Amino acid sequence: MGTHNGSGGGNQILSVVGTGPGDLDYLIPAARKELEMADVVVGYRTYLELIHEIIDGKETVSSAMMQEVDRVGQALDLAEQGRHVVLVSGGDPGIYAMAGLVYEVAGLRASKVEIRVVAGIAALNSCAERLGAPLMHDFATISLSDLLTPWEVIEKRIQAATEADFVLVIYNPRSKKRDWQLTRAIEIMRSVRAPTTPVGMVRGATRENEQVSISTLETFKPSDADMQTTVIIGNSATFINDGKMITPRGYSDKYQLS
Amino acid sequence: MGTHNGSGGGNQILSVVGTGPGDLDYLIPAARKELEMADVVVGYRTYLELIHEIIDGKETVSSAMMQEVDRVGQALDLAEQGRHVVLVSGGDPGIYAMAGLVYEVAGLRASKVEIRVVAGIAALNSCAERLGAPLMHDFATISLSDLLTPWEVIEKRIQAATEADFVLVIYNPRSKKRDWQLTRAIEIMRSVRAPTTPVGMVRGATRENEQVSISTLETFKPSDADMQTTVIIGNSATFINDGKMITPRGYSDKYQLS
Repeated sequence: MGTHNGSGGGNQILSVVGTGPGDLDYLIPAARKELEMADVVVGYRTYLELIHEIIDGKETVSSAMMQEVDRVGQALDLAEQGRHVVLVSGGDPGIYAMAGLVYEVAGLRASKVEIRVVAGIAALNSCAERLGAPLMHDFATISLSDLLTPWEVIEKRIQAATEADFVLVIYNPRSKKRDWQLTRAIEIMRSVRAPTTPVGMVRGATRENEQVSISTLETFKPSDADMQTTVIIGNSATFINDGKMITPRGYSDKYQLS
Repeated sequence: MGTHNGSGGGNQILSVVGTGPGDLDYLIPAARKELEMADVVVGYRTYLELIHEIIDGKETVSSAMMQEVDRVGQALDLAEQGRHVVLVSGGDPGIYAMAGLVYEVAGLRASKVEIRVVAGIAALNSCAERLGAPLMHDFATISLSDLLTPWEVIEKRIQAATEADFVLVIYNPRSKKRDWQLTRAIEIMRSVRAPTTPVGMVRGATRENEQVSISTLETFKPSDADMQTTVIIGNSATFINDGKMITPRGYSDKYQLS
């Protein structure tokens, strides 16, 4: 730990950055700079692998999935020892990711560490890009994970967003243990929207294993989704053209296309 | 126009990129590369100014606000003449921006131009970063512009999203001509949510004139917002701590913080 060792000395910075979807061409320079300045980089193994060429030679603390609270505590410990720690999440750390937990834990500890959150390209940004232009109009973003949220709350949101004709962006649609939630969500949407409503699905956007598919509420198969998948369901005006999913800007004909 | 001149020859590429919030540290490398390869760069004057150091010396076609359809047509014309055209929007071209219109117009023309959309840091990403961590849970993104969408549709969405306890992200909250919509939206939210619900407002994120303020549904003044502002209203669990607006990950106490 060199000259930065010891409580209270040195940097005392905890930066929270996102990798974006995976391809380094989607990592913003602000996040890259934090990584380059880091003394220690903390994160899931998968995310650290995505950025290995930037952090090569640096001290890293990697972990398996599902230990967020421990990881944040460990990152704060290291920063409190006077080091510049960078905590890495996927996508944008500000969207369903680590930023909130870092502020929460730092607040409870009354930590003096400087917290820096840096935005990133979230799954909703990269998946929209891959599908065409589904997010040209109002949309609701919903996670189907009922680990920390009661399913009744989630189902109420799906119902409300569907009835109010939002485009829907579904995070965490399906895992091995949570295998019925997406089917139920689609069932709710089918009861309100036309069977021809476009449904886009993206897995591993920008990565080698990227898969993009566009179907409809009628033909969509929930079993095709997993934890690496984001699903976008169109509103009543969304259409498919030339393999792209497009939501027009408005409902009126005030603008004339030619 | 050199060797690229003439219909059918040359590049025939139309790339659609976003500047992100403004600071070039938030422009993803994929977008920068498109700009560097461009023969012609098309966009609002304001956006072209943000990226002037990248496009210096290149041919540009700039325009004032509110001529989107003409601008897209012009960009396609230039690409059809065999040039690599880059159309620039603010934020992420895939969120309330130019991507959809480009696909729509290209489709209607049955254009042979290669369309490339590149994601960017949208206002929702950068404003969330500036405010703390308001988007850790489900959120609904709503534009208050009733230019192309009937107000009844917008109001129904505000009502539905508020009742279903989504965090709300408000785009286009207020302009000189649209001066009552945000007041009405806040009125709806006040009738459902606690007066202490946090409200974050960001204008010009990452730019010299950046303004960030956090208030509550009770104290928020709609007249402080304008077209450059994004407003984020918390859900029932969002709180303010140490000047940051934080939405916790869930409603249960399944994770123990320490």
